Amino acid sequence: MSNASIGIFDSGFGGLTVMKAIQALLPHENIIYFGDTARLPYGTKSRETILRYSMENASFLISQGVKVLVVACHTACSFALEELQQKFDIPIVGVTTPVIEQIENLSPQGKIAILGTRGTIASGAYQNAIRKLLPTAEISPIACQLLVHLVEEGYIDHPITAMAIYEYLHFLKNKEIDTLILGCTHFPLLLSQIQQTVGPRVQIVDPGQFCAVSLKKLLQERQLINIETTATATQFFVSDDPEKFRLLGKNFLSQTLSEVTNINYVFEI
Amino acid sequence: MSNASIGIFDSGFGGLTVMKAIQALLPHENIIYFGDTARLPYGTKSRETILRYSMENASFLISQGVKVLVVACHTACSFALEELQQKFDIPIVGVTTPVIEQIENLSPQGKIAILGTRGTIASGAYQNAIRKLLPTAEISPIACQLLVHLVEEGYIDHPITAMAIYEYLHFLKNKEIDTLILGCTHFPLLLSQIQQTVGPRVQIVDPGQFCAVSLKKLLQERQLINIETTATATQFFVSDDPEKFRLLGKNFLSQTLSEVTNINYVFEI
Repeated sequence: MSNASIGIFDSGFGGLTVMKAIQALLPHENIIYFGDTARLPYGTKSRETILRYSMENASFLISQGVKVLVVACHTACSFALEELQQKFDIPIVGVTTPVIEQIENLSPQGKIAILGTRGTIASGAYQNAIRKLLPTAEISPIACQLLVHLVEEGYIDHPITAMAIYEYLHFLKNKEIDTLILGCTHFPLLLSQIQQTVGPRVQIVDPGQFCAVSLKKLLQERQLINIETTATATQFFVSDDPEKFRLLGKNFLSQTLSEVTNINYVFEI
Repeated sequence: MSNASIGIFDSGFGGLTVMKAIQALLPHENIIYFGDTARLPYGTKSRETILRYSMENASFLISQGVKVLVVACHTACSFALEELQQKFDIPIVGVTTPVIEQIENLSPQGKIAILGTRGTIASGAYQNAIRKLLPTAEISPIACQLLVHLVEEGYIDHPITAMAIYEYLHFLKNKEIDTLILGCTHFPLLLSQIQQTVGPRVQIVDPGQFCAVSLKKLLQERQLINIETTATATQFFVSDDPEKFRLLGKNFLSQTLSEVTNINYVFEI
């Protein structure tokens, strides 16, 4: 069972930044990644829809025999992580939870900005979880929906993106925050521009890295680490065009994507 | 049969601008509108996926007993209009075709810009259809994907949108175009900003208005005009949250939306 794959799903491309962090810590693991590219984005859609999509994505990966499931999408975690953990028997790690567990260490002053999709921010999931650990935290939640689309258009170093980041974040200068959480898997690609806008004193945190650490601990505790050190397999499944995923995915994963396979949805009312 | 409804589908909200044009010309018609809000946007997805979605959406509306189907989404028309017309027996009007049929009248010099989603422009559907009628046309096709997301974020009169429009369109100043086609149903909301960027001499054309004229003619020819002049019914179905559709839809339709009902998709691989 320890050589079974880690299953990862996301609405599309962003989860590849989480996968990259996982591969850095766990280079000998086999991975099956599912990107729901035919139905992205998740960040603008309702709790009910995202819950349904998450259940379907998890069912697909579990049907592939994965040993653990990583929900590499903040919106899916915000709306569906608890329900997924209740429904399925295998261990499930969300990208949102591990960073929150470290929040007291990360934010000495408890002045925290959270950037996310409209769905993630509206759900209040981050805010509520942080307040349980740090009841006096001053939290600035910011829905930066447009940044998702700008990254997907490849507008990384572009004046429009710089203007959008300024629009969303310049008010933080007066908030004296100490920590900023990149609560969407697209945002690590904009890290340097965000740092420039909020200033060098703010610590910017990528939850994907904390997720990878948490996943490694879990695999160790449950003796699920792959002990075979031969070449590992990484398989990608997407619900839209595989070729487009291969092309755009490179920006997120910083490496060429191997085998990408399309799986189709069938519509029923 | 003449009091049966007109069925309209779109990926989400944009088709409401087409519906508005239809209601202006055909105030006594009953309408059933389906917005595929759980799977939008269509403009960034593949031909195969959009073809599948379009077939499913058409099947749903036809199961509701509509007398005619309007495909109020340029991407769906570009990828699926012919297949829809082949598959289904009822008359099907696309938002793209009627404006093309008038292109010789609309563009005396044949210097035409077409703005659309990435899918619409990449499909080449507009370009090929125009070249059949005007072989010497000088066509400037421009994929303005970001404008869709900006409109959906409510950034209509916003400096970021102004910057994006300038980025996409300022090179047209040297092209001396006479006609610009708003080849995406979101773009009529940006008409005045687009006019400012391309200058007052360029005639900006909204295909939704031509679609409404064409639909009226078709209903007259086939004696399908609703002869009852009592109060008409407008029903909305969406695949994501009905309340959000009601709220955002107002911007596109310039009026309050009545009854909005959710229909769910069931996932099958």
